[in-house]
Amino acid sequence: MVVTLGLHPLTSSFLSPATLSPGWTSVRRQDRRLRYFSVHKAAGSSSSSLETVAGNQKSKAQERVITPISEDFNAWYLDVIANAELADYGPVRGTMVIRPYGYAIWEAIQDYLNLKFKETGHSNMYFPQFIPYSFIEKEASHVEGFSPELALVTIGGGKELDEKLVVRPTSETIVNHMFTQWIHSHRDLPLMINQWANVTRWEMRTKPFVRTLEFLWQEGHTAHATDEEAEHEALQMIDIYTKFAYEQAAIPVITGRKSKVETFAGALRTYTIEAMMGDRKALQAGTSHHLGQNFSRAFGTMFTDVNGERQYVWQTSWAISTRFIGGIIMTHGDDAGLMLPPNLAPVQVIIIPIWKKTNEKDVVLDAATSVKQSLSAAGIRVKLDDSEQRTPGWKFNFWEMKGVPLRVEIGPRDVANGSVVISRRDVPGKEGKAFGISMEATTLVAYVNQKLIGIQSALLERAISFRDRNIVDVSSYDELKESISLGKWARCPWSASDKDELRVKEETGATIRCFPFDQPKGAKTCIMTGNPADEVAIFAKSY
Amino acid sequence: MVVTLGLHPLTSSFLSPATLSPGWTSVRRQDRRLRYFSVHKAAGSSSSSLETVAGNQKSKAQERVITPISEDFNAWYLDVIANAELADYGPVRGTMVIRPYGYAIWEAIQDYLNLKFKETGHSNMYFPQFIPYSFIEKEASHVEGFSPELALVTIGGGKELDEKLVVRPTSETIVNHMFTQWIHSHRDLPLMINQWANVTRWEMRTKPFVRTLEFLWQEGHTAHATDEEAEHEALQMIDIYTKFAYEQAAIPVITGRKSKVETFAGALRTYTIEAMMGDRKALQAGTSHHLGQNFSRAFGTMFTDVNGERQYVWQTSWAISTRFIGGIIMTHGDDAGLMLPPNLAPVQVIIIPIWKKTNEKDVVLDAATSVKQSLSAAGIRVKLDDSEQRTPGWKFNFWEMKGVPLRVEIGPRDVANGSVVISRRDVPGKEGKAFGISMEATTLVAYVNQKLIGIQSALLERAISFRDRNIVDVSSYDELKESISLGKWARCPWSASDKDELRVKEETGATIRCFPFDQPKGAKTCIMTGNPADEVAIFAKSY
Repeated sequence: MVVTLGLHPLTSSFLSPATLSPGWTSVRRQDRRLRYFSVHKAAGSSSSSLETVAGNQKSKAQERVITPISEDFNAWYLDVIANAELADYGPVRGTMVIRPYGYAIWEAIQDYLNLKFKETGHSNMYFPQFIPYSFIEKEASHVEGFSPELALVTIGGGKELDEKLVVRPTSETIVNHMFTQWIHSHRDLPLMINQWANVTRWEMRTKPFVRTLEFLWQEGHTAHATDEEAEHEALQMIDIYTKFAYEQAAIPVITGRKSKVETFAGALRTYTIEAMMGDRKALQAGTSHHLGQNFSRAFGTMFTDVNGERQYVWQTSWAISTRFIGGIIMTHGDDAGLMLPPNLAPVQVIIIPIWKKTNEKDVVLDAATSVKQSLSAAGIRVKLDDSEQRTPGWKFNFWEMKGVPLRVEIGPRDVANGSVVISRRDVPGKEGKAFGISMEATTLVAYVNQKLIGIQSALLERAISFRDRNIVDVSSYDELKESISLGKWARCPWSASDKDELRVKEETGATIRCFPFDQPKGAKTCIMTGNPADEVAIFAKSY
Repeated sequence: MVVTLGLHPLTSSFLSPATLSPGWTSVRRQDRRLRYFSVHKAAGSSSSSLETVAGNQKSKAQERVITPISEDFNAWYLDVIANAELADYGPVRGTMVIRPYGYAIWEAIQDYLNLKFKETGHSNMYFPQFIPYSFIEKEASHVEGFSPELALVTIGGGKELDEKLVVRPTSETIVNHMFTQWIHSHRDLPLMINQWANVTRWEMRTKPFVRTLEFLWQEGHTAHATDEEAEHEALQMIDIYTKFAYEQAAIPVITGRKSKVETFAGALRTYTIEAMMGDRKALQAGTSHHLGQNFSRAFGTMFTDVNGERQYVWQTSWAISTRFIGGIIMTHGDDAGLMLPPNLAPVQVIIIPIWKKTNEKDVVLDAATSVKQSLSAAGIRVKLDDSEQRTPGWKFNFWEMKGVPLRVEIGPRDVANGSVVISRRDVPGKEGKAFGISMEATTLVAYVNQKLIGIQSALLERAISFRDRNIVDVSSYDELKESISLGKWARCPWSASDKDELRVKEETGATIRCFPFDQPKGAKTCIMTGNPADEVAIFAKSY
């Protein structure tokens, strides 16, 4: 068998600039399937009872299909994505197919954010993805930031086009072109819209979810009469993202302002949520830009104010993308695979029926179906894995790897007792296992809901603790260098120049992730210049 | 004022092959706004009471911003889209910006279909939009059908690409590339997925919603072990589309099979729903294809069957797009503008508060707000137009033009009586107006719900009657020609050749829309050849 095979070649393939060779993926798939099969066989043959299988998981870690985190974080990440069937590689270098299980997480993200956007007065709409090349050139820093990453359509309907078309990398330019036609008076403001769309950036180093040539996102765009209103909007949206990260994804992001160097191409100010991944690298997980009047001046987006004077509008834009799914994987996952926060998990509860003798089958399946109906009726996302091709042990591993928060086990003795066994994904072994939970609908639903809430907050607490253990206050550049070399985030007073900031990047690989909103009190001295500093900044290596 | 201005130049601009000149659109916008203002002024000045304004609508038709249907159907269509703010033109020829009110209709379509797709076992996912050019060439009739319409990316990240990338016109090729990697055994079948995505087809003659260079759609793709299963799936999906059209959009489509000439490039059989628009042209509003093994043979998509033998999978694909919104506009709209079926209307009920004296304002607005809350709590999509810049008369016209099914009017006398006035969008004048409907929540909600259901079925009945008046059974080619020249659909027994079918198209402009599932009984004789025919076909001019 292939149990001892090393890492499969996902890493190198995704980074390779060449289109995949045709035979490559099917080899990988077969490899993956066979490895699963090996886990199944091992689990089934080495144990006489299911309790043994479940309790035995640690000793079987070496048989797993997933590279241990400690061995190679990147390989672990790619293994989780492949084995949990979250995504696969598209035929064009750097593109990604989002598979149903991964897409269901995206749908959960959409459902939550869509509601929040509408509650705060935004309407969904849709802009074309083809942008005349000349538009991109109108805002000077915007073109500088995006022109190296553009995909260009030059042929349409068999003919060379007069003007090249940009496949949108972001939509500020085309949005402003339209806003200019829709906005006339102060009564047309604020104009607050959002679109869910695909965007394309010709990235050289790609990684599933985190950085792909094409990705899905939402992009909000607003126009306001005053600087203050636009600032309020930009802050409101980064606050919605922050709450989403904490409450839904259980990711304790650090929210703050980007440095000038890291500000979005064309913005006055960029606000960001920065998440610490399991390898302690930072992931920029969402941004909200105060665009000032940069685009309105470039596109002539003006309104007549209450005094009858013509003014340029003040604007914002803000986005969260499928990259966030990468953040969820890398925040919560462990050696067993994915671990999903209950609020976003496509399957919150997996039911595994267990029987040995044929005469036990019907009674167990009936009970399992009834339990499923009770939970489902209560709005819990539940799945019953009643397939007969796999042993319960194999299913335990499989759904654990898929990150399902709770597992309900039902065997003949449970049915006789009117109870079930419930295991938490986030607490391994006996400690996470509760026996004798009543099958009676009210009791069971209450128990499951309480546990789901418990898991949601346990994931957040664990992530907060991990984050806080790995952010260090430093008071000199040497200390900063040391912390970064240890893989940590360094927090320090900072008022030095852009040039100094770039020097830190060159010498340590770390960048300013943000000036956090949450600032320590008291006088501060810049670690680089010794001058007074108004704020602390957080430096870290990032994706 | 600009009341007497002729058609604004939407028609020619959208069809023009050149990118719009920069100044054009703002002129159009101003024009549109001024015309509205003129309606407002007229309504406000010519009437001493609101009843007069509302009852006076017919005489004001000439002041409307919308070209009468009888005068120019295409101009009427474009006026409705512009004035109801459903969509606007993108900067690139043939592209369209879907504005919030239009997008909300799309969201209603998505909500309904998404549920039906999931209920029937399909999962959402996402495929990349860039397809290697070589993929398109693999299925012979597919490349022939699509190659004239392709948009090609030739430059990425500043470099000429080795292989041109097709911006997806449809995804069968890339789907099969991936299915080939995911499907191994009969246990992997059926594989049933769907994606909501944008697609690009380089159309020369474009029209908002109906035919645009880029559009939004859902495309379902499935793979099955047998011909029968794929056939069942293709039929199941056209059935879901048919039910959607009748029950949600109130569009009485004719469902049937396409002729060989009109079958999708790469399919064995195409099923279609054909809708009759207000100008009696046919709109292909949704299709479901049985692809047979055409793509699986081209891409080597095989599985091991229960006997251990390798077989090619049988496949389907099916789609509905934003074109459907054009179908809704052109089925139900009238000279006053849009008319939306309640099930898909973003706003089902508009509340217009009416007061003259300042001391009446608060009491009317309080009552209006309370009515809004009652309806909203009952799940009715309701909006209160409490803006003070417009007269009630202007608002009546505006929301009528936006196609809102029901209007609730509340004035001081109504508040005193504890009642409201309710008007139906689909029944003009006094006949559609009910006075003295109690404000009490239970009574009001019941009344509104009953009326919404009534409007939904009235729209369908009216459309069925219109459709049936305009389909003629013909028994000779001369009769067919005459019916088509009168703008009607012609139904006739047909067993002639593809060549004969193309001859009809050349000579009359009509094509076979479908061989309807609903076939008359009895022996049939082909109108072209005099040979026996198994089926009747429907010929019509189409979009």
